[in-house]
Amino acid sequence: MSTARELVVLGTASQVPTRTRNHNGYLLRWDGSGVLFDPGEGTQRQMLHAGVTASSIGAVCVTHFHGDHCLGLPGMLARFSLDQVAHPVDMYYPAAGQDFYERLRDVVLPFPGLREHPISTSGPVRAGAEPFALEAVRLDHRVETFGYRLREPDGRRLLPERLAAAGITGPAVGRLQRDGVITTASGAAVTLDQVSVPRPGQRFAFVMDTRMCSGVEELADRADMLVIEATFLDRDADLAHDFGHLTAAQAARAAQAAGVRTLVLTHFSQRYPDLEGHRAEAAEYFDGELVVATDLQRVPVPTRR
Amino acid sequence: MSTARELVVLGTASQVPTRTRNHNGYLLRWDGSGVLFDPGEGTQRQMLHAGVTASSIGAVCVTHFHGDHCLGLPGMLARFSLDQVAHPVDMYYPAAGQDFYERLRDVVLPFPGLREHPISTSGPVRAGAEPFALEAVRLDHRVETFGYRLREPDGRRLLPERLAAAGITGPAVGRLQRDGVITTASGAAVTLDQVSVPRPGQRFAFVMDTRMCSGVEELADRADMLVIEATFLDRDADLAHDFGHLTAAQAARAAQAAGVRTLVLTHFSQRYPDLEGHRAEAAEYFDGELVVATDLQRVPVPTRR
Repeated sequence: MSTARELVVLGTASQVPTRTRNHNGYLLRWDGSGVLFDPGEGTQRQMLHAGVTASSIGAVCVTHFHGDHCLGLPGMLARFSLDQVAHPVDMYYPAAGQDFYERLRDVVLPFPGLREHPISTSGPVRAGAEPFALEAVRLDHRVETFGYRLREPDGRRLLPERLAAAGITGPAVGRLQRDGVITTASGAAVTLDQVSVPRPGQRFAFVMDTRMCSGVEELADRADMLVIEATFLDRDADLAHDFGHLTAAQAARAAQAAGVRTLVLTHFSQRYPDLEGHRAEAAEYFDGELVVATDLQRVPVPTRR
Repeated sequence: MSTARELVVLGTASQVPTRTRNHNGYLLRWDGSGVLFDPGEGTQRQMLHAGVTASSIGAVCVTHFHGDHCLGLPGMLARFSLDQVAHPVDMYYPAAGQDFYERLRDVVLPFPGLREHPISTSGPVRAGAEPFALEAVRLDHRVETFGYRLREPDGRRLLPERLAAAGITGPAVGRLQRDGVITTASGAAVTLDQVSVPRPGQRFAFVMDTRMCSGVEELADRADMLVIEATFLDRDADLAHDFGHLTAAQAARAAQAAGVRTLVLTHFSQRYPDLEGHRAEAAEYFDGELVVATDLQRVPVPTRR
C-alpha cells in the first residue's frame, strides 16, 4: 500500500523560488489515481524530473489563486492535450477565483476532458467513494482559500481467529465481506460485524496558505498524512499572521492535537538559509513522522491503521 | 564589449520541455540594458540558475502567444513587482494576441512600470537609438508572429594615422567626434569623415516559430548575432512546413546568405535524442560561428566590425 499511495513533492518554495526549491506542486498518487495540488510555475517540468506523467492525473485541486499556487495550470492543461490524456480531469478551485481561473485556462487550447468544480462553501465536493471522496474546507488567507481532504470510506478489519471459530474460510470470506452476512455450514447466520472490528479509511489532508483557524483543525483531524504550509518560524509569527501564513510550530501543534501520523511541512519562505529551524521547531511539538519536504522527494502515505 | 553584450540562454525546448531543456527564454544583455525574449514557463527560475535578475530587464519581446513562448510572462510580471523594479519595462507583443496577453497579465497583480506596445505591422517599434532601436518584422507561423531586431545606429571608426597626419590629438579627438568638424592649430577645418570610415552598428536578430519567408531574410540581414528556431532536421522538412517551423538547414542557409556572424540555433523538438544532426546540418551551409544552444549558456555578441 505504501508505494501505491505516496506523495510526490514537486516544489516547496513559497512566493520566490530558489535554486533548490521550485514553486509549489504536489502529486498525490492514490492507488491508480493521481491528484495534483497547487501547480505552481514549472510544475510540468518538475513532473518530468520526478518521473511522473500528466496522464497519471485524474484531478487537480487549487487552494487559491496566488501565483505560486496556480501559474503552472496553463502548462498542465496544455500537457493534458498534448499528451492526449484520454480520461476526464476534475478541476477543483475556489469559485471566488473564477476570473483568474478562466484567464489561466484560456491562454491555452481547450482540453476536452476538463470537468470544472468551482467551490463556494466548505463540504464534500466529490461524493464518490472510489477511489476516494474529496472535501474542501475554507481556510483563512488574504484571498478565498480552500484546503482539501481525501477520505477513504471507513471499513472493517477481519479478525482471522473469529473467522476460524465460525468456520468461515476460502470464498465464503469474500461473500461475507460483500453481503455483510453469511450462513455457515452449521446453519448459523454470521454477520460481518461479529468477525471484524472497525477500520478507519485513510485520510490525506492538504493545507496551504492560511492563518491558524478551525479549518486547519478540521482538515488535519486524524489525517494519516498532512501536507501543510510552514512558511515562517515562530520568531516571525507576527509576519506570518499579517500575511496569512503559519509557522512551523503552529503547524506542528495542530498536527499533534489532530492525531496526524505523517506531517509534511512545505511552502518555505526564501528568507531562511536552511530549514533546520523548521525541523527543530516542529519536532518540539509533534512526535509522529516529520518530513521537512524537499523537491522531488517521495513520501509514502503510512499504511492503514 | 563582448562581455557587456551577450546572450544568456534560459531555455531551448520547443513545445515539450526535457530534463535538460526548459521552455524558451532568452535574455540579451546589451550594455546596461536587458531584453527578455519569449519567456516560457519557468523563465524566472532559469534566471536564478543563470545568475541574472529581473531588475536587469528593461524590455520584454514576445514573438507570439503559443504557450512555450509566453507562459512565463505572469511570473516575470510578478517578479518585477516583488523585486520592486524601479524602472519602466517595455512590453512588445503582437496586437493580434491582445486577449491572450491580457489574460496572462491579469492573473497577477499589476506591475506599475509596465509600458505596453502591441505591434500590428512590420517596422520600427522603438525609435530611440539609446541604447538600441528595435524593429519588428512579421513572420509566417500558425498564428500572428513577429521577429525582432535590435540595431545600434551606424557610426564611424576613427583612423589613427589620419588623425596624426592632421595633428589632432587628446581632447580635440572628442570634440571632433561630438561636433563633426574641428579647426586644427594650422587653421585648417578637418571633418570627421576625412579621418574615419563608416562602421556599421551592431545588429541582433531574434527569429522564432516561422516557415522560411522574407521576414527571416530581412531580420537576419547582416546580423552580428542571429538567434533562430531550428525545430526540425531537413529530413522532417514536411513536418516543419506543416507546423510552421524551420529546419536546421533552412536556418543555416538563411544565415549564410544574410552574412550573419554568430548563428545560435534553438527551440529544438524533443523528438531528437541529441542535436549532433542539427550541428552537422547547419555546419554544411553556414561557415560563421555556430552555436547549438544549451540551457544557461552565455554567448557573447561578436565585437563590432
